[in-house]
Amino acid sequence: MARLDLAYDGTDFYGYARQPDLRTVQGELEPALASVFRMPIETFVAGRTDNGVHARRQVVSFEVPDPIHAAKVVSRLNRILEPDIVVLAAADTEPGFHARFSAKSRTYRYRILNRQLSDPLLRRTHWHLATPLDIDQMNQAVSHLLGQHDFSSFCRRSEDQSRQRTVLSAKWVRVGDIVELSVTAVAFCHQMVRSIVAVSVDVGIDKKQAEVVPTILAARNRNKASGAAPPEGLILWSVQY
Amino acid sequence: MARLDLAYDGTDFYGYARQPDLRTVQGELEPALASVFRMPIETFVAGRTDNGVHARRQVVSFEVPDPIHAAKVVSRLNRILEPDIVVLAAADTEPGFHARFSAKSRTYRYRILNRQLSDPLLRRTHWHLATPLDIDQMNQAVSHLLGQHDFSSFCRRSEDQSRQRTVLSAKWVRVGDIVELSVTAVAFCHQMVRSIVAVSVDVGIDKKQAEVVPTILAARNRNKASGAAPPEGLILWSVQY
Repeated sequence: MARLDLAYDGTDFYGYARQPDLRTVQGELEPALASVFRMPIETFVAGRTDNGVHARRQVVSFEVPDPIHAAKVVSRLNRILEPDIVVLAAADTEPGFHARFSAKSRTYRYRILNRQLSDPLLRRTHWHLATPLDIDQMNQAVSHLLGQHDFSSFCRRSEDQSRQRTVLSAKWVRVGDIVELSVTAVAFCHQMVRSIVAVSVDVGIDKKQAEVVPTILAARNRNKASGAAPPEGLILWSVQY
Repeated sequence: MARLDLAYDGTDFYGYARQPDLRTVQGELEPALASVFRMPIETFVAGRTDNGVHARRQVVSFEVPDPIHAAKVVSRLNRILEPDIVVLAAADTEPGFHARFSAKSRTYRYRILNRQLSDPLLRRTHWHLATPLDIDQMNQAVSHLLGQHDFSSFCRRSEDQSRQRTVLSAKWVRVGDIVELSVTAVAFCHQMVRSIVAVSVDVGIDKKQAEVVPTILAARNRNKASGAAPPEGLILWSVQY
């Protein structure tokens, strides 16, 4: 088994997962791997990201018959994939390693430019929100999500039977005009981070109270939450094994 | 007289100055002003930026018969110009104010991502350079540029008779993988910052010695310098009045 770590700017991709006739990260990566290894390669990914979502360090695993020459694989792939996708590392792994099933947890960040005017140089990577946000209230809100819960109210839909998820940490910080969430969970359901951001923002602008978050969780009904924040602010930050 | 402060992502513009059939910042701004003020508006700019160069805070002046309603002008212009261009402020100025001729100095920054692999999320705003840079040597190099000199060796061409320019400060700093030049001069000639960056980098990778910079200046010959660094790393940072 082999592993790739990669970064990408999701702006011009229709998400990670392969789709017919649409430009996706997997749709670029697998043909590049096939060209480097001269055989079809099937990949598994740690966290499928949506349309417009970025990755600072995504992880992919795949099977090849022989040990890989890591430096060569990195430079050959990058010659094909840059500049939107950059392969950061390649490595052989222990047998049975699987990017998705071996992962212990995932960390996402979500960044908001919180000032009256937008910034053209941040528009691809930050959600611009003019209304001042109350970070303390937003941290109150996400504190209710820590631990294991049924996150049905925060999931767009799910192929899984269960929407039980375990959030290990969730913290909003402000640095100047930038307000950033860092959230780590064992796994996330679809649009979970952007739903958490949307509820947090409703609390941060005093449209909702932080104390309603347990009620939203208990309802197990997506209509009780606040929809989803836009994708451009979201980055898959790291995957822990 | 009135003044606008604006930011833009230069990636998708053919520079600031109006050009027939090409998308430029001035070519977007003047029709927007004409639409807001319902009359043709001629603008003057503090620093014309090249194809692909960004601005954090560019300044433009123009004449209108009446005092302006600043907040309205900002919001109406932004409705037309966003997201690539954002108007940060509008104000009436003293008579005789001229964005170019009243400016006391300009500050540019140039950012390099200095690590082996590129970063897709920084590719529009940083030059990626894999060879490790020696910042101390680069600071030695730019120290020779301080004060008044004939910068012919650092100018692409000039409509001006004189290429005498006065550099007030120039300093390279490293923060992690990012290496950044901040340079302030009374005025710059065409491609001067990118030429300074190119020479600095040649010194930083030990291709040139810092001590040759006075010789390059004295030659008054662009072929003695190192060409120009790419535009994506360059940002007009501020203009002082």
